[in-house]
Amino acid sequence: MKFRRSERLIDMTNYLMDHPRQLVPLTVFAERYSSAKSSISEDLAIVKETFEQRGIGTLQTVPGAAGGVKFFVKVSQEQAAPFVDELCELIANPERLLPGGYLYLTDILGDPQVVQKAGRIIASAYAEAKIDVVMTVATKGIPLAYAVASQLNVPVVIVRRDNKVTEGPTVSINYVSGSAKRIQTMVLSKKSMKQDSRVLIVDDFMKAGGTVMGMISMLEEFNSHLAGIAVLVEDEKIQERLVDEYLSLVQLSDIDVKAKKINVQAGNYLNIWRG
Amino acid sequence: MKFRRSERLIDMTNYLMDHPRQLVPLTVFAERYSSAKSSISEDLAIVKETFEQRGIGTLQTVPGAAGGVKFFVKVSQEQAAPFVDELCELIANPERLLPGGYLYLTDILGDPQVVQKAGRIIASAYAEAKIDVVMTVATKGIPLAYAVASQLNVPVVIVRRDNKVTEGPTVSINYVSGSAKRIQTMVLSKKSMKQDSRVLIVDDFMKAGGTVMGMISMLEEFNSHLAGIAVLVEDEKIQERLVDEYLSLVQLSDIDVKAKKINVQAGNYLNIWRG
Repeated sequence: MKFRRSERLIDMTNYLMDHPRQLVPLTVFAERYSSAKSSISEDLAIVKETFEQRGIGTLQTVPGAAGGVKFFVKVSQEQAAPFVDELCELIANPERLLPGGYLYLTDILGDPQVVQKAGRIIASAYAEAKIDVVMTVATKGIPLAYAVASQLNVPVVIVRRDNKVTEGPTVSINYVSGSAKRIQTMVLSKKSMKQDSRVLIVDDFMKAGGTVMGMISMLEEFNSHLAGIAVLVEDEKIQERLVDEYLSLVQLSDIDVKAKKINVQAGNYLNIWRG
Repeated sequence: MKFRRSERLIDMTNYLMDHPRQLVPLTVFAERYSSAKSSISEDLAIVKETFEQRGIGTLQTVPGAAGGVKFFVKVSQEQAAPFVDELCELIANPERLLPGGYLYLTDILGDPQVVQKAGRIIASAYAEAKIDVVMTVATKGIPLAYAVASQLNVPVVIVRRDNKVTEGPTVSINYVSGSAKRIQTMVLSKKSMKQDSRVLIVDDFMKAGGTVMGMISMLEEFNSHLAGIAVLVEDEKIQERLVDEYLSLVQLSDIDVKAKKINVQAGNYLNIWRG
């Protein structure tokens, strides 16, 4: 059965969005729609143009016999900026203040729409980087890590604070939480990560970065390499940060418990753009 | 700036897939593309036809001034069946056997492609049901819960086994794990769920169903209602199951540790279809 161009464009869009960073040979589409490669190429040119125009992403065409097309998510600054501002507003709500000056973010991390947008923005920063795995630590960081990983088309590896029988043999390390200066343990299933992986660490919140440092030393146990660090919110008012190269969407500059005031601003993700 | 139909179809597809179960007034598209409502309606007819033909989902048009269009994910049985079979094959791999007859599923639950497909399949079963929240319990169920919730466009609520300061005030309950018959505790942040919510419980694995029962009694603490139960894998060889109405993608019928054999088959999700 033959497909009209309009049908091909709709299905292609869906297909490409579902297969980010995967090389799709033109023959796949040609057979899928029983159409000539030439018309598939025309279709893809239209898709590429529209994706870039609307800030959905971009298509990379790989020429040659083994060639095809790859979709990369790319969120433009024009789209990221308003989302980050919206996020700042959400977080600045004084009702989020918890005893001890902690911040309630669970609802934000529980909203798939927010998490997916944040994930897409973070993923676009690493869309063309060599990343094999996204790593996070249970529990809060998991949704964001998945949102990023699904756009990068790589597995998620979840470091745990406790040992679980369903994980099989695990590697366990001790680390010092940067802010509380407490010794803590994290474990990772041996099966869960191949040696020599390039790892993007994703988490919801970073204070001094002790947990991230813990994950980095976990990487060493797997002879793997740090490819990047990205967090939704960073706590800015930290004297000495343990990690210095990372991406943050939102910066928490100051919490005034008495005045019930939370000061937040855009994280370095936008600042990098704004230069 | 005006858009050609081809561009509109591509962007609409992306937009609708990003906004499942949300009423999008035609004016939104009309303004987005500075096109007449009549041509938008024609576009949507083509999108609807293709979505249904390709098993992507369906569009529901709400007539009237307050009307618009809603996208529902709908995975056809023709698409679900091969995925479930693939899943069974994955799970039947004897290398998954852990001491004590446990099954290693972490890699499967760590693969966004698998989790998203599974999430879409589960979501299509509840696409048009009245659901306000997806609930799961930390840690393994979280990715699948998010995949389902993002297709249903509802927040995820994560029940924890431990209390965390960043959760604020919590409600805590005790429950008996069905298989191990051990008393356990689960906590849920008070802020995390509104009263009178309709809740879909999603988890990765169900044995006797003790954890699910725990979540159900947690619902009562929030005066909320069970809208459904869906699991990726159910353990079939259970004498008395604590819950009887649930959806499962895969059924684990028997594990022979000695012979290193894992017997799995399609869960009731497909059986319901097959009647």
